[in-house]
Amino acid sequence: MLDIAIIGGGPAGLSAAINGVIRNKKVKVFGNSHTTSYIYKAEKVDNYIGMAGVSGKEMMDQFMSHAKEVGVEFHNGRVLQIFPLDKGYTLNVENEFIETKTIILANGINTENPLPGENKFLGKGVSYCATCDGPLYRGKTTVLVGDSESAEEEVNYLAEVCEQVYYVPLYKSVEKVDPRVKIIMDKPVRIEGDNIVESLKLKKTDLNVDGIFIIKESVPTTQLLDGIEIEDKAIKVNQFMETNLKGVYAAGDCTGRPFQVAKAVGQGTTAALQAVSYLHKN
Amino acid sequence: MLDIAIIGGGPAGLSAAINGVIRNKKVKVFGNSHTTSYIYKAEKVDNYIGMAGVSGKEMMDQFMSHAKEVGVEFHNGRVLQIFPLDKGYTLNVENEFIETKTIILANGINTENPLPGENKFLGKGVSYCATCDGPLYRGKTTVLVGDSESAEEEVNYLAEVCEQVYYVPLYKSVEKVDPRVKIIMDKPVRIEGDNIVESLKLKKTDLNVDGIFIIKESVPTTQLLDGIEIEDKAIKVNQFMETNLKGVYAAGDCTGRPFQVAKAVGQGTTAALQAVSYLHKN
Repeated sequence: MLDIAIIGGGPAGLSAAINGVIRNKKVKVFGNSHTTSYIYKAEKVDNYIGMAGVSGKEMMDQFMSHAKEVGVEFHNGRVLQIFPLDKGYTLNVENEFIETKTIILANGINTENPLPGENKFLGKGVSYCATCDGPLYRGKTTVLVGDSESAEEEVNYLAEVCEQVYYVPLYKSVEKVDPRVKIIMDKPVRIEGDNIVESLKLKKTDLNVDGIFIIKESVPTTQLLDGIEIEDKAIKVNQFMETNLKGVYAAGDCTGRPFQVAKAVGQGTTAALQAVSYLHKN
Repeated sequence: MLDIAIIGGGPAGLSAAINGVIRNKKVKVFGNSHTTSYIYKAEKVDNYIGMAGVSGKEMMDQFMSHAKEVGVEFHNGRVLQIFPLDKGYTLNVENEFIETKTIILANGINTENPLPGENKFLGKGVSYCATCDGPLYRGKTTVLVGDSESAEEEVNYLAEVCEQVYYVPLYKSVEKVDPRVKIIMDKPVRIEGDNIVESLKLKKTDLNVDGIFIIKESVPTTQLLDGIEIEDKAIKVNQFMETNLKGVYAAGDCTGRPFQVAKAVGQGTTAALQAVSYLHKN
């Protein structure tokens, strides 16, 4: 069982991770590679004190090498859902189940609202993981909505098992999609059905489907962890980065403005130290 | 008139300063040298991400060179008091008066409570600045209570103008005190008098004096700025580092635990950006 599971490998997550490891806790970082952090693409970051005039790439690379130097461990794969246990939580990481005593949410900005119907039909035709739930749709018709290239691998997997697969990319340059997949350049509007999914309404057309896969770089926080308190689209925290849920902390952009590396790093440190103190008391 | 006056040159103050300057604001840092920050003496600081395995000195030197590189200006001298103006504030910096639109308090941990009687007799025999108020005690008897070597210069100045000067050092190794000064190794207990100061009670003795100078590395926040809200010995701030006073922000150890460089740096950044946004609106 982990002491601290950190969701997200940006500045907040990495800062939390080094602090947890330095305090001798069993820590693991889940989520996307540090290269997907939006700061990675910044031409120049000059306001994180101590590292004058670096590029975003240089900064993140240096953060990663610091993390690796102190022994931070990483686990690839998206965290799809978090369930409470008697003492602690279970993470569903693409259908691998991992237990942890505490959690630090450092999953960045959730820019997108869920589609109308997305929450209602989750588990009833809506899924966040093609490699997990794809086999349920063998021989059927599915659509995958993807917000980045990393979704293409998932849609290609569906092409192997489903009779008909549509792909709705929410980005411009589609790269390596299986020729059996039908690409639809359109904007999803809502999900319809009675008890289970029947169709995805788009701006210009409707798709009658059995399953809808929504693959975003990160799962919306409210769907990740039931009952987490949100205020102004950000996770509500107090000065110690405690959320409303026991043993769950948040740090970085997911706690709201300002969206700054230094603020993320500071909150990551605070969250980790607070988790450590919780672990000592429980 | 300054846009942002920053009280304190530790990690929080320097981080606030670079952010203010980068946003093209007129910024000045007041207070002690960065070498007096307690982190400066740390043998190793390994938990500020991006700077693995540095000493406290290396870290603070690198922070200073970053600050100087972006053009941060410094003003030597202790800020003794801050008064509200119609729009903004006036700082009393050892009797030099400087106006500013906003203030960021980054003055570290206030470990000491005021002496009983200190607040009551402030301006009635109690002073925080010997070079400012010393001449009022020409030919009289004074005592100076100092918490560090930097107070010795002040007591030596009193020796030039007063008839009799006592020195109560709150630290061990007294270095360069004028031979006319009488050193008393004792612990101050309270200040007594009727309308004005009459004596300083110590544990083992009483000193009948006309003036009492209390020279600490930083002036207690509540005496610095009347009406600032304190909670659990820390300046009360919200998530944007706003205090209860308009245009006044706080960052770093003065806002409470955890006492960590990363937290101070993050809060300094947030405070500066919030001050910048206030300046644009007002």
